[in-house]
Amino acid sequence: MLQPLGFDPLRWLQGSTEDDEIQEADRIWVAVDGMGGDHAPGPILEGCLEAIDRLPLKIRFVGETDKVLAAADALSLRERLKSAQSADHLDLVASGPSIGMDDEATAVRRKRDASINLAMDLVKKGQAMAVYSAGNSGAMMASAIFRLGRLKGIDRPAIGALFPTKDPGQPVLVLDVGANMDCKPVYLHQFALLGNIYSRDVLQVKEPRIGLLNIGEEDCKGNDLALKTHELLRGEARLHFTGNCEGRDVLSGAFDVVVCDGFTGNVLLKFLESVGSVLLGVLRAELPRGRRGKVGSAFLRSNLRRIKKRLDHAEHGGALLLGVNGVAVIGHGSSKALSVVSALRIAHSAASHGVMEDLAALQSGCD
Amino acid sequence: MLQPLGFDPLRWLQGSTEDDEIQEADRIWVAVDGMGGDHAPGPILEGCLEAIDRLPLKIRFVGETDKVLAAADALSLRERLKSAQSADHLDLVASGPSIGMDDEATAVRRKRDASINLAMDLVKKGQAMAVYSAGNSGAMMASAIFRLGRLKGIDRPAIGALFPTKDPGQPVLVLDVGANMDCKPVYLHQFALLGNIYSRDVLQVKEPRIGLLNIGEEDCKGNDLALKTHELLRGEARLHFTGNCEGRDVLSGAFDVVVCDGFTGNVLLKFLESVGSVLLGVLRAELPRGRRGKVGSAFLRSNLRRIKKRLDHAEHGGALLLGVNGVAVIGHGSSKALSVVSALRIAHSAASHGVMEDLAALQSGCD
Repeated sequence: MLQPLGFDPLRWLQGSTEDDEIQEADRIWVAVDGMGGDHAPGPILEGCLEAIDRLPLKIRFVGETDKVLAAADALSLRERLKSAQSADHLDLVASGPSIGMDDEATAVRRKRDASINLAMDLVKKGQAMAVYSAGNSGAMMASAIFRLGRLKGIDRPAIGALFPTKDPGQPVLVLDVGANMDCKPVYLHQFALLGNIYSRDVLQVKEPRIGLLNIGEEDCKGNDLALKTHELLRGEARLHFTGNCEGRDVLSGAFDVVVCDGFTGNVLLKFLESVGSVLLGVLRAELPRGRRGKVGSAFLRSNLRRIKKRLDHAEHGGALLLGVNGVAVIGHGSSKALSVVSALRIAHSAASHGVMEDLAALQSGCD
Repeated sequence: MLQPLGFDPLRWLQGSTEDDEIQEADRIWVAVDGMGGDHAPGPILEGCLEAIDRLPLKIRFVGETDKVLAAADALSLRERLKSAQSADHLDLVASGPSIGMDDEATAVRRKRDASINLAMDLVKKGQAMAVYSAGNSGAMMASAIFRLGRLKGIDRPAIGALFPTKDPGQPVLVLDVGANMDCKPVYLHQFALLGNIYSRDVLQVKEPRIGLLNIGEEDCKGNDLALKTHELLRGEARLHFTGNCEGRDVLSGAFDVVVCDGFTGNVLLKFLESVGSVLLGVLRAELPRGRRGKVGSAFLRSNLRRIKKRLDHAEHGGALLLGVNGVAVIGHGSSKALSVVSALRIAHSAASHGVMEDLAALQSGCD
């Protein structure tokens, strides 16, 4: 059985979590940048309240208090917010002027009390196990680097996204998908080491198969970056390097981690997101053709709705910011409540599977 | 109505050609590298014989005579071949030792009488209007450069592939998809000029909208190559530069030509080719779910078969080699007869719409 593109690859990890009653003792704190995202803070708050019901989380919601409360009123969430607060499931943390979606990343230096900065600080101080933001991803990365710091031995943090594969429950972690436009071979080497740990700890892959995105299977193929990276990966004993991964192999299930520069990865990720809607159009045009087609389509209405839902990008989770000293999840700028829940699920998984311990071990190898 | 991924974007161009009887006077000569491709020469010959019936073409089939005739016997094509020859629709041209799929591109210098070289020469001598090969694409490019020569003002030829878009009958020409791994801004600028002419002349787009593949819409986004190329394209009066094209915009129909480096383009093309089969898997798994699903799917069997056929990569055509002094079409290495027909249709379109005249005009601007 193949998996649809909108399949949330981390859902299986959660096992029965969402069906069982959540044990209070299992809940871990996650810091949320309440002001990040095109529609913030309303849908971010709504998603957090929803996540509290579904996942073993507690939320430190960082935002400009007046705007957060106004959004809660507008969405009739005031009562739910109050009860989450009194159950100690949600904590409102007041922040100063926020970083806009169009602000330069350097704005995180000027706006010291911006929600994204204070959210990072909560992780730094140990008051949260992970941080989530659907805001300006450049600003988020800058904030993470300044406040949390980079891991030792990592020159550049990378953004890792989970792509579905043909194998159910076996997504592939692709990185970088947008943090680093122009990469050196050593960056991609580091991405592979980071991806290896996340794949092992968060996705529970025993011996992740690491691939290098390239234009051919042969060692001699590629651009200058790929050729030099290939040499580095081939000689790396800490990794199970499986070789080059062509464009057609990304979704094949033959790789658990695929490394590439942030330009190519970003193009690929956005392309993947758009393909679902193109396919739906094909189905809508082709399936109801002819008399038999019309009858058949009528019978399939609910199945088609489910396929549409699975292909829907709002069902997708967030991306991971790898290489900083903490678990950080980046949401889509256009995140609605459902995407927030999905991204928080990823944050929870990453925070509760010992990633940071293994990353620390990676650093100790750099002394 | 949206178009399926496997839609042959040039079929519409042919208009009623394939239904009408073909006029002998309309037939143009196309040179075919009979020995190029994983399965050559059998399926190549079969595709050519099929194309003769469907398109206003005549074929100069270049190959090692004994192997071609043996393949004709093996596929029971001997009679059909004879009648095509006697109707002056197919001409067998004997060649020397061929270039293998694994040969270095430089083999075209050693094996002077290889089928690909002789096929190029036929175009050079004016005995064919276009050349087609499903062989080693590196060797094909080398042969095209040595035998046909580059266009003046073009540093590097590029491979252009047609991607379908949401708009029926309006494919987008993406280049480069694999000829040039490491590109300079000036190469991409030249790709844009070449793509513009092909889009106008072959796809009959009045004022092609040229896009630059990039990670954001804003002018300031991108890797070093994209940023510098953006400046060149913005100042180019011969083009209608529409701006950056994100991964999600490639299939949107908002662009007629999208330029990128050959690494990114190759990854994207192969990814696109694989997505079809992944999506079919989703359909196969999801549609027949439940009792209503089973009934509905039974009614839809023939429509599903049509969707599968449209998503099938054998239905795709070839890619264009742009920037050399002649019309050259590159087929998939794994080409079967159907792909050969599809690629020859592209060769015919490109050869019969005045591309070379406009390319000559482009060169005269370089004096």
